[in-house]
Amino acid sequence: MTDRRPARLAALGASFASERIDALVVTSLPNIRYLTGFSGTSALALVTRSEIRLLTDFRYATQVADEVGVSATIRIEPVSLWTGLWDILAKMSTIEVIGFESAHLYHRDFQRLLNDGSRWQWRPQLNLVETLREAKDADEVELIREAARIATDALIRTIPQIKEGQSELAIAGILEKALRDEGSEEAPFPPIVASGPRSALPHARASSRVVEKGDLLLLDFGAQYRGYCSDVTRTFIIGAPTAEQREIYQVVRDANHIASHSVKAGMTGMAADALARSYIDAQGHGEAFGHSLGHGLGLEVHESPRLARTAEAALVAGAVVTIEPGIYRPGWGGVRIEDDVHLSENGPQILTNFSRELIEVA
Amino acid sequence: MTDRRPARLAALGASFASERIDALVVTSLPNIRYLTGFSGTSALALVTRSEIRLLTDFRYATQVADEVGVSATIRIEPVSLWTGLWDILAKMSTIEVIGFESAHLYHRDFQRLLNDGSRWQWRPQLNLVETLREAKDADEVELIREAARIATDALIRTIPQIKEGQSELAIAGILEKALRDEGSEEAPFPPIVASGPRSALPHARASSRVVEKGDLLLLDFGAQYRGYCSDVTRTFIIGAPTAEQREIYQVVRDANHIASHSVKAGMTGMAADALARSYIDAQGHGEAFGHSLGHGLGLEVHESPRLARTAEAALVAGAVVTIEPGIYRPGWGGVRIEDDVHLSENGPQILTNFSRELIEVA
Repeated sequence: MTDRRPARLAALGASFASERIDALVVTSLPNIRYLTGFSGTSALALVTRSEIRLLTDFRYATQVADEVGVSATIRIEPVSLWTGLWDILAKMSTIEVIGFESAHLYHRDFQRLLNDGSRWQWRPQLNLVETLREAKDADEVELIREAARIATDALIRTIPQIKEGQSELAIAGILEKALRDEGSEEAPFPPIVASGPRSALPHARASSRVVEKGDLLLLDFGAQYRGYCSDVTRTFIIGAPTAEQREIYQVVRDANHIASHSVKAGMTGMAADALARSYIDAQGHGEAFGHSLGHGLGLEVHESPRLARTAEAALVAGAVVTIEPGIYRPGWGGVRIEDDVHLSENGPQILTNFSRELIEVA
Repeated sequence: MTDRRPARLAALGASFASERIDALVVTSLPNIRYLTGFSGTSALALVTRSEIRLLTDFRYATQVADEVGVSATIRIEPVSLWTGLWDILAKMSTIEVIGFESAHLYHRDFQRLLNDGSRWQWRPQLNLVETLREAKDADEVELIREAARIATDALIRTIPQIKEGQSELAIAGILEKALRDEGSEEAPFPPIVASGPRSALPHARASSRVVEKGDLLLLDFGAQYRGYCSDVTRTFIIGAPTAEQREIYQVVRDANHIASHSVKAGMTGMAADALARSYIDAQGHGEAFGHSLGHGLGLEVHESPRLARTAEAALVAGAVVTIEPGIYRPGWGGVRIEDDVHLSENGPQILTNFSRELIEVA
């Protein structure tokens, strides 16, 4: 793979002039990973137009050197990363105005800037790095494709092991083990395993509820590969479906099909959302699709862009987004079918290869 | 179980006078869970001396009512939780000065307070709810004890399944499945599985490295039960240990023993840390114990108090803390042994029941 980090630093630095900043303090860990490759959970980066200074603590001393290479100068701080930052800044005479990530800096730390960093001018910034991350390069798409492969292959391993009488927690365990066996680094989020009426809760976690014949069983989960995430949902039926379950399923399946084959770069997030929503509306279930159609996917499982009723921005070429329409009826259950789609120059490429038919399990 | 939520609201409200606030906006999700029982991932709470208003979104409409009961008035917001907050506040004529959680509010949202909430006075607060959470009541201790039972029973299931030639990822999968089978809701953090030289990385994730004879194998993981976390580390040996591995292990084991039997309420976090550190120092390994001795445990896997060289505060009676000394040698490997300890009125009670001897596996 080409080392894209120098190009990312250059692209970020190019935004400094219009933002009227000399440097940027990066506190978002995924943004730090994107710029330097460092995957630890304690870090702070100072980015100038020409270099990155990365601060982390003792626990990561060995790992950070391996991951970062020459993309940043590393400093291991024994006490507080902020102390190290003041020290580095004090030696940089040309830096006067410094941006900080307004969406990734807690008020408590913002106060440090005003107090300990009072000799510099601080300017809040939004999405400077996130915007760069939106369009994925070819290497990133391959990593997400592999994360999607891990997820769908794990699902193939999981289905024959699902039995009536198991708890949702037990099914989550089977799925998590299968994800590891396929090579997932860790789950981007705890798998949602929601059965029967619980499938109507769009963000249910797995519970001790026991799966019974006739239940809808919704699995929403992801894998991670070299930091990149996938996010997949399939809804199954335990035993045979009723006519009503089949009918609702078919509406969601068609909405998923329409949206994942029609979504494309250049369209607004709103227009993308409407691809599925207008179809579900027309089938009389608009009220039951209460969340947005999807979101970007990359180093984070939720990132820009948004595919939602209020998303006015156009989708950029190269983005990878989820397409996840759903219909939820409190007390009855819900169906969601979610795929990951790369908005390539040649149109949408679906990265998640797994049947979208209603599968009877157990 | 007694419903402790009214008492928690009363205790929190009692702190308002000295902080000179009429209300508190709570943005920390664990704090919201502690006060209301709500476990969703999208919430905002306005707490006055007499009531809690809880805002969440559509996805949690069913769940929030079940979890919260009468402990808070629920409001489902279609667009932004902040819009709902302004609406609620506009109808409360007696509220003038409002606290917010400085450590749990991003600068971006802080700007909302200044802009959209400019008719109120805003006062940053630190740890108002966290301080209440520090001393666990009897019910909370039982939940943590169950989370610890799940973790150690999962470890008992896992050990016979570990084999030479497996990857760390595969071992993580076995452990995660065992945690689910024992009833863990979800992992408080992704298990650390670090073998051979990687065991010297105190915060290694599981990797594709294959476990070999002679490796130290460090497993650091937790379980969650009704929101409460456990956090356990054991270090094993694949095959038989060398004299040096045995010697280092014994130092850590003794440091763990000394600290977990001597730690008690009233002691500063610094003094607690020194229990293990002075022993490891005296054995000539002080430099190799680069992190702090432990941390509080509860609804979060890292919470107050800290047991560290710089922790001047006294440990409160009722806290549950980790005791996790370690020795790490880059390139060679590391050993950590971690237990969860309740600082009861009768002295330290160890909640994690699992052998601390060096066990040979595979």
